[in-house]
Amino acid sequence: MKQKTSTKDLALSSNERLFEESKSIFKPKKSKNISPINPKFYTFHSGLKNRNKDLLIVLFEKSVNVASVYSKTSTPSAPIIWNRKNNNGKCKVLIVNSGNANAHTGKEGLKIIDKYAFEISKQFFCNKNEILVSSTGVIGEIFDPKLIIDCIKKIKKTNNTDLVCAVKAITTTDTYLKTSIVKVKINNKNFRIYGMAKGSGMIQPNMGTMLAYIFIECNLNKKNLNQLIKKNLEDTFNSISVDSDTSTSDTLMLFSSSKIKINIRDKKNFNKISEGIFKVMKDLSLQVIKDGEGLSKLININIIGAKNKYQAKKIAFSIVNSPLVKTSISGEDANWGRVIMAIGKTNEKIKQEKIKIYYGKYLVCSDGGPYRKCKIQKLNKYMKNKNIKITVDLGIGECSRSVIGNDLNYEYIRINADYRS
Amino acid sequence: MKQKTSTKDLALSSNERLFEESKSIFKPKKSKNISPINPKFYTFHSGLKNRNKDLLIVLFEKSVNVASVYSKTSTPSAPIIWNRKNNNGKCKVLIVNSGNANAHTGKEGLKIIDKYAFEISKQFFCNKNEILVSSTGVIGEIFDPKLIIDCIKKIKKTNNTDLVCAVKAITTTDTYLKTSIVKVKINNKNFRIYGMAKGSGMIQPNMGTMLAYIFIECNLNKKNLNQLIKKNLEDTFNSISVDSDTSTSDTLMLFSSSKIKINIRDKKNFNKISEGIFKVMKDLSLQVIKDGEGLSKLININIIGAKNKYQAKKIAFSIVNSPLVKTSISGEDANWGRVIMAIGKTNEKIKQEKIKIYYGKYLVCSDGGPYRKCKIQKLNKYMKNKNIKITVDLGIGECSRSVIGNDLNYEYIRINADYRS
Repeated sequence: MKQKTSTKDLALSSNERLFEESKSIFKPKKSKNISPINPKFYTFHSGLKNRNKDLLIVLFEKSVNVASVYSKTSTPSAPIIWNRKNNNGKCKVLIVNSGNANAHTGKEGLKIIDKYAFEISKQFFCNKNEILVSSTGVIGEIFDPKLIIDCIKKIKKTNNTDLVCAVKAITTTDTYLKTSIVKVKINNKNFRIYGMAKGSGMIQPNMGTMLAYIFIECNLNKKNLNQLIKKNLEDTFNSISVDSDTSTSDTLMLFSSSKIKINIRDKKNFNKISEGIFKVMKDLSLQVIKDGEGLSKLININIIGAKNKYQAKKIAFSIVNSPLVKTSISGEDANWGRVIMAIGKTNEKIKQEKIKIYYGKYLVCSDGGPYRKCKIQKLNKYMKNKNIKITVDLGIGECSRSVIGNDLNYEYIRINADYRS
Repeated sequence: MKQKTSTKDLALSSNERLFEESKSIFKPKKSKNISPINPKFYTFHSGLKNRNKDLLIVLFEKSVNVASVYSKTSTPSAPIIWNRKNNNGKCKVLIVNSGNANAHTGKEGLKIIDKYAFEISKQFFCNKNEILVSSTGVIGEIFDPKLIIDCIKKIKKTNNTDLVCAVKAITTTDTYLKTSIVKVKINNKNFRIYGMAKGSGMIQPNMGTMLAYIFIECNLNKKNLNQLIKKNLEDTFNSISVDSDTSTSDTLMLFSSSKIKINIRDKKNFNKISEGIFKVMKDLSLQVIKDGEGLSKLININIIGAKNKYQAKKIAFSIVNSPLVKTSISGEDANWGRVIMAIGKTNEKIKQEKIKIYYGKYLVCSDGGPYRKCKIQKLNKYMKNKNIKITVDLGIGECSRSVIGNDLNYEYIRINADYRS
C-alpha cells in the first residue's frame, strides 16, 4: 500500500479502503510480521457509556519511548494535567476512556486517575511514570474509578483485539472510525507507521476532544520523537478547524513501538520516517475534519505571498473560522467580499491593492477591486463542489499556509443546540 | 425624558418608545428649540438601491467640530480611507449612502468619492476637508458617482426631514430604525444629545457595516470630542459582537452641533456630558445587537475577578463568540463545560480551581468542578429567558468586563447562506 501525499488526494481518499486495510492488517491472528513489543489492544465496556465499549487499554510488552503534545488550553482536563506531571517519555500502558472527559473535575479528577493508575501499576509491574491516560466525553462530571479498575483486573482473562475495535472503544459519536497506515522500507528493513484518531468534526464538538495515537515500528529515542512531532504537527493537526473552539483534552501521542534499529542520524532515513509520520498525521487530521462530510463541505484556505509564516497562519484561520465565509460556502455563493472582510479583521499589515483571490482556479478579485473578467457561470458551477479551495495571494512576501475547515450549516446548529450534556 | 442607565434596562427598553419620541422631537416644523446650526437632514433615492431612499445628506449651517473612529480592519472601505486622508476635525456636510459599501474598490472607489465630494464643495462653498463620507452595502462593486451627484444638485429644491427618515435612508435590511436621545441640563442650559445607527445584527452582517452618528448640542472642541469618544467607546460599541466578524466600514462620528457654551473644564460638567453620550452610545449599540431579536436571544457575558482589563476582555469575547456556547444558549442548555472550554482556549493564565460560573443567579461550577447543589430545575427554567446572563468569576483579581452578543441559530444560517451579493 502506498498513500498519495497531496492534500487533495488525501482529502478524497476512501475511508472505507483504509478501514478494510486496517482490519486485515491488525487482526491479531494474522499479525505474523509484528515485532515483539508491538502494542496489544484490549477493549471493555466499563459502564461510563450506557452501552458499547468505552475503555481501551494499550499494553506494550516492554516500556517504549513516547512523545506527546496536548491542547494549549488554560483549562486542561485532568488526564492532561496528570500526564504532564507524571510521565517522563516512557510508556508501558496507555489507558483511554470515552463517556466522560474528566475535564474541570478539580482535585477529585486527579484522584480518580491516581486510583486506576495504581491498579495498572500493580497488574503490570510498572511505575506511575510509565502510564499515560486520556479521557473523552462530557465535561464537568465526576465518575467512580471502580468502573475502570474492574476492567483492569479482568485484562489477563481478556483476548486482545485489532486497531479498528480499539478505536471504536474511544469514539463518542464519530460517524466513522479513523485509522491510517503507511509502510516504510529503509535499508531492506520493513516497518509500519500506523495510528488511530478520535475526533468529532461537526458531530459533537462539545465533547471537545481530538485524541490521536501513532505507533512507529522502529527504535526512536525521546529526542527523535519530539523532533518528529514538532516537525509534522503544524501542517497536519494544527491546520484544521471545525469551529474555532479548542478542546480541553486534545492529545497526540507518538510511540516508538519496536526495537527495529534504523540509523536515524542518516538524514535520509530520518526524512523517510518523518515523511511516513506526516502521511499518517495528515490522513488522520483530514479524517477528523471530514467527519460529518455528508452534511457539509470541506474548505481549503490557501494563503500565499504572505510576509511571514505567522501572518499566513493568522489570516488563513481568520478566513476558515469566519461564520460569514463558512455560511457563504454552505450557500454555494462565491461572496469574496467576506474573504476580504476576514483578511481585514486580523489587523495584519498587508497591501489591500495587491490581494488576489481565487475560488478554485477562478480569479475573482485583483488590483484592490473586483476582477472584471471573472467567469461567473463557471465559478457558480465550481461552488457546487464538495471541496472548495480558496487561494489568497497577499502579494507581499514568500510565505504560505494551507488550512482546512468546514462550512457552517443547519446541521451544525441542530446538533449543537439540541445536544444536552 | 430620562433614560435609565443599567444595561438590563437599556436592553429591554422599548424601541417603539424611542422611535415615537424621535419622530415627534425631530419633525422639522416642530423643532422650535433647535439651535441655529442644528443639522438638517435630506434624503434621496439615488438608484443605488432598486427602490426606497438610499442617500442621506446631513448639512450643518456652519462647520462643526467632529471626532471619528473607524474599523481597525486592514482592508478598510474607500470612505474610511478618504476620511482619514482628508478630514481634519471639521464638518460642514456628511454624506452617507446605502446599497453599495464602496469597499475593496481600489483607486476607483476613491475617485468616485472625489467626484461627488467636488460637487458638494461647489454647492455648499466648503473645502474637501469639511466633508465626511460613509457607504454601506455590498463589498467589491464599482458604482457611478453621477447617481449621487444628481441628488446633490437637487438639494436646494428639497425639503429637509426628520431623524427617523434620515436613518431610514442609510439602512440596508435592518429590521427597525435605531435612534436615541437624551436631554442634558447644565447650569440651566438645556440641550440634547441624540444619534442614529445603522447596523444589521444577525440580519445581513455580510453588509458588514455598523454606522453611527451622534450630535451633541453644545460647543465642544476637537480635543473634548476625542476624549469623549475614547472614554465611552470601550463599554458601548466595543462590547458587542454578533458573529466576531469585523466590518470593512464600521464608523462612529461625534458632532458638536451647537454653539451653546458649557464650561467643560469644570469636571462635573464634562462628566455630565460624558454620561449623556454614554447613554446614547450604549442604547444605539444595544439596538444594533438586538436587531434580529425576534429570532434569537441576547447573551450578556460578565467577567469579574480578572487579573487585568485585557484578560477580562479577551475571555469575555472568547465566550460570547464561541459557536458552541452560542448554540447551547439557542438550545436553552446550561452547558457550562463549553464556557470552561472557551475560557481555556484563550491561553490566558488563570487558576482553573478558582473559576465560578453563574447562569443568571444560579451557581453551576466552583472549586474546579461542578457545583453539586445547583438547582437544576430552576436553572432550566431560567434558560428559557430571552436574555441570558452568564457571569464568570475568575477569582484572581479585581478587573471586570461585560460584553453582549447573540445566540447562533437556524435563522443566522438561513440568512447568511442564502444571501447572494
